[in-house]
Amino acid sequence: MTAPAGHLVKGFPERVSVVEVGPRDGLQSEPQFVPTDRKIALVNGLIDAGIRHLEVTSFVSPRAVPQMRDAADVLAGIDRSKGAVLTALVPNARGADRAAEAGVDAMVVFMSASESHNLKNVNRTRAQSLEGFADIVRIASDADIPVYGAIATSFGCPFDGDVPVSSVVEIARAYRDMGITTLSLGDTTGMATPPVVQERCRALREAVPEADIALHFHNTRGVGLACVYAGLLEGVTRYEASIGGLGGCPFVPRATGNICTEDLVYMLSECGVETGVDLEKLIGVAQEAEAIIGRTLPGQVMKAGPRLQTASMDSVATANG
Amino acid sequence: MTAPAGHLVKGFPERVSVVEVGPRDGLQSEPQFVPTDRKIALVNGLIDAGIRHLEVTSFVSPRAVPQMRDAADVLAGIDRSKGAVLTALVPNARGADRAAEAGVDAMVVFMSASESHNLKNVNRTRAQSLEGFADIVRIASDADIPVYGAIATSFGCPFDGDVPVSSVVEIARAYRDMGITTLSLGDTTGMATPPVVQERCRALREAVPEADIALHFHNTRGVGLACVYAGLLEGVTRYEASIGGLGGCPFVPRATGNICTEDLVYMLSECGVETGVDLEKLIGVAQEAEAIIGRTLPGQVMKAGPRLQTASMDSVATANG
Repeated sequence: MTAPAGHLVKGFPERVSVVEVGPRDGLQSEPQFVPTDRKIALVNGLIDAGIRHLEVTSFVSPRAVPQMRDAADVLAGIDRSKGAVLTALVPNARGADRAAEAGVDAMVVFMSASESHNLKNVNRTRAQSLEGFADIVRIASDADIPVYGAIATSFGCPFDGDVPVSSVVEIARAYRDMGITTLSLGDTTGMATPPVVQERCRALREAVPEADIALHFHNTRGVGLACVYAGLLEGVTRYEASIGGLGGCPFVPRATGNICTEDLVYMLSECGVETGVDLEKLIGVAQEAEAIIGRTLPGQVMKAGPRLQTASMDSVATANG
Repeated sequence: MTAPAGHLVKGFPERVSVVEVGPRDGLQSEPQFVPTDRKIALVNGLIDAGIRHLEVTSFVSPRAVPQMRDAADVLAGIDRSKGAVLTALVPNARGADRAAEAGVDAMVVFMSASESHNLKNVNRTRAQSLEGFADIVRIASDADIPVYGAIATSFGCPFDGDVPVSSVVEIARAYRDMGITTLSLGDTTGMATPPVVQERCRALREAVPEADIALHFHNTRGVGLACVYAGLLEGVTRYEASIGGLGGCPFVPRATGNICTEDLVYMLSECGVETGVDLEKLIGVAQEAEAIIGRTLPGQVMKAGPRLQTASMDSVATANG
């Protein structure tokens, strides 16, 4: 593991949970089916590297998202011995039944802060989405499984532009009123910026102080880790990321999606923030993810190596400056 | 121009100078000669977008770096009407004579904070480099041209690993003793991290308070803009970047080099920091840079567009979450 560079950056929390979402959020958009055993190996590699919170699959309709048709099999194959918390996306009661039967540790329900995106994404108004969650919460409660709530387009909407902070707060309150207080703010198309992050974190802390917030940034405009920096200064201690940067942005073919788990862990570790994750092992898993997908992933640390990995002076020609 | 997101991030300076280094630092490592008129068009595009500080070429030996053999012609073709400050790298007295004759606004001398990198890069010890600068300073002074000083490997060395902050401070003091107080700290192989940036900025402010510091980060490990964030909180108001992220890392074939000018301007602008640069025009120049180089550049904003560039709801299929 890379040694922290000596001191914690002032104002950063001492410890942060890194939540891996690549196996669900990253693989979901891959057109080619990834064999179940490779999905399982990927998740087990992440757990072996020290990740303890993972969104591993999605109990959506196998017809709508064929990549996730093996949700229950993936869950059955994952190493549970290390106590990793395995969550799955659940869109409806049918999915909740399947998720409960498969033994998820938590179900994740999701809706968008913007009406346009919610309509486009799940073909429901936000009010209809919230209504539908009641069934899921009941099924989960009967099975003694916690429910987490994700809020997509929390930092902006690709159709509407800016999303009022009040929309995010309203959904967080609605979640809270259903007993859902483990929340995630999703930066669906990479519109988060440091001041927007600050604003939303402060408003939520004020309005729903019992909420445990995770931040989920995309690097679509290059500022994903700068947004993490802003979140750390706000005291947020959970960050979602995708190994190697798996997954793209549905709106911009050439752009990247989720921030990369190993780049996030690199930054945290170098800033003296504990994650419990072994960066060298994580780089190995990122390389495995690249092999699974068969194309170059956006992760940087997986290419450059840890900070203090030195080169031989004979190995390279340099150019001035 | 993208409107700032409403408020300045607390602790950030109100205004920052963006220094473009792509035409020199980016193009220098391109094996294929870029025609002089395209280099000039690139620089003039950057000036038209509002950039007012540019490192446009290098007066090195045309045999050593054939890409820079047209240094004087490039300078002669650049639009001087907007008052942009045009600098060029100068390795020795011969280069200083040529640079003076070509009419640069400032000469940039450079050496490495680490002995190993300096030996590898310019085949001199650091003491020999400093000695050699005396001639350059005299030539520049006779021509009434200021000299700036760059310190490569300021945040780490690819051969030695960590570089003591005292090495950076010593060189900054040596520069100051020669009358060179406009300095740039180079992150030659992407080893800067937020705490290392903090440490070096504070040490220099203490030891050489008259120095005007620029930070030059590479995004080799994904944390380039997070390092800018750290620099902004330290009050640094000059940042070097490369349009589109032109230029690679000589030690890691697949890794990126300089941070991207347009991604930097996007972040600054969204954080309420004034740069005087028009982001939309800058994106156009980044696309032109990509056309010149003939391959995909690492810039993100040039692919995704400004933050509030909205999509039509009919234009895309979305996946859940």
